[in-house]
Amino acid sequence: MNNPLMNTKPTVLAFDVFGTVVDWHGSIASEVRRLNLGVEPEAFATAWRKGYRPAMARVRSGELPWTKIDDLHRMILDEVLTQFGITSLTEPEIRHLNFVWHRLNPWPDVIEGLGQLKTQFTLVTLSNGNLGLLANMAKKAGLPWDLILSAEVFRHYKPDPETYLGVAQTFDIPPEKVMLVASHKDDLASAHACGLQTAFIERPLEFGKDHIRDDLHQESFTNYHAKDFLDLARQLGI
Amino acid sequence: MNNPLMNTKPTVLAFDVFGTVVDWHGSIASEVRRLNLGVEPEAFATAWRKGYRPAMARVRSGELPWTKIDDLHRMILDEVLTQFGITSLTEPEIRHLNFVWHRLNPWPDVIEGLGQLKTQFTLVTLSNGNLGLLANMAKKAGLPWDLILSAEVFRHYKPDPETYLGVAQTFDIPPEKVMLVASHKDDLASAHACGLQTAFIERPLEFGKDHIRDDLHQESFTNYHAKDFLDLARQLGI
Repeated sequence: MNNPLMNTKPTVLAFDVFGTVVDWHGSIASEVRRLNLGVEPEAFATAWRKGYRPAMARVRSGELPWTKIDDLHRMILDEVLTQFGITSLTEPEIRHLNFVWHRLNPWPDVIEGLGQLKTQFTLVTLSNGNLGLLANMAKKAGLPWDLILSAEVFRHYKPDPETYLGVAQTFDIPPEKVMLVASHKDDLASAHACGLQTAFIERPLEFGKDHIRDDLHQESFTNYHAKDFLDLARQLGI
Repeated sequence: MNNPLMNTKPTVLAFDVFGTVVDWHGSIASEVRRLNLGVEPEAFATAWRKGYRPAMARVRSGELPWTKIDDLHRMILDEVLTQFGITSLTEPEIRHLNFVWHRLNPWPDVIEGLGQLKTQFTLVTLSNGNLGLLANMAKKAGLPWDLILSAEVFRHYKPDPETYLGVAQTFDIPPEKVMLVASHKDDLASAHACGLQTAFIERPLEFGKDHIRDDLHQESFTNYHAKDFLDLARQLGI
């Protein structure tokens, strides 16, 4: 739903990736299920993701030096493997599992939706994922980004303002010409505070079918509120 | 021609852009011709580009703080406009002209060649151009990069080693799994010194038809020597 208070048309759409573009929970659970590790795949996926924010917070606070997500994912994975009592994996197998984040699958509407949006907007990522991860993911899934931007470029993790404002600076445009597209309200609220436009995407299954999200109501700080990327394209007049 | 001394197949091809992928001289001369400024368009293009290396050298030496190419191009453009006695352009017109570097046209073989190479390799840019410039250029010209990397990401201009090694670090692979594709021998020699593979692309018309390049012979530090991207694809077995 369009917010009449802000009608400047954005030129750049900046997409959050994990959860907004790709189904991390379902993709990781599937991979763990295939590995037949004798653990509950959905619980494993949840535990791995749960370590994500605390790990980034250690970088944001300066406790850790700049560390890319691949390395944070590995630190967390080592803990989760211990926690689940998994000792059967070799080092190359653990490394391969860690890179499952490079192989996440997009939600069903994403490829067609991005294809439509790309005809009228410049599409970029704004993810805490590192560049190599995002590039490998895009190549495998066929995500048609015009530019992959990452916390790694700005050396700041979201929600640091340097990330949101960095997108505008990259294109030499004012913040209100950038719209963050995300499924997470804290991300959108932070972008809004930096002067960006915002579009919320409902992703009810982000945490799996046993934990349907209950935070999908409209907020005052979002300019658009869409079911998925096709709905957003329609609302944007495509 | 394949160099038998190094047969590791690269996984990432990193492309120099100005001159290698796009025809800066012809594109700028065309734009200047259309503007009807009463100057010799080819001489104008040559003068503008001539300021490029000295400007970057001032950044590399620390005389200037980090300055992106858009801003260096503008500094040089202001000097060139004075040098050519051009006073008729308004500020918005000068700004538009400065962004001609975002609108450069690819050489005729590029789109088809990159399309072929993309089926077997990860294609990235490694350019001194800034991210916004490279993204706008790719969108307009349809360049199918898997990832746009730039001096702006590494905060170092080529030929600083941080740029060549930065590509390998981005993908967490050894330097010899990256091949620099470029039309400039100093760029290739610097990449070779960092352990990358190298492919030279002949671009005889880079400086215009009145200044055909005479430095197109094979060198010891290049693994491949190709007429254009289609020839490179053929040599790489595609």
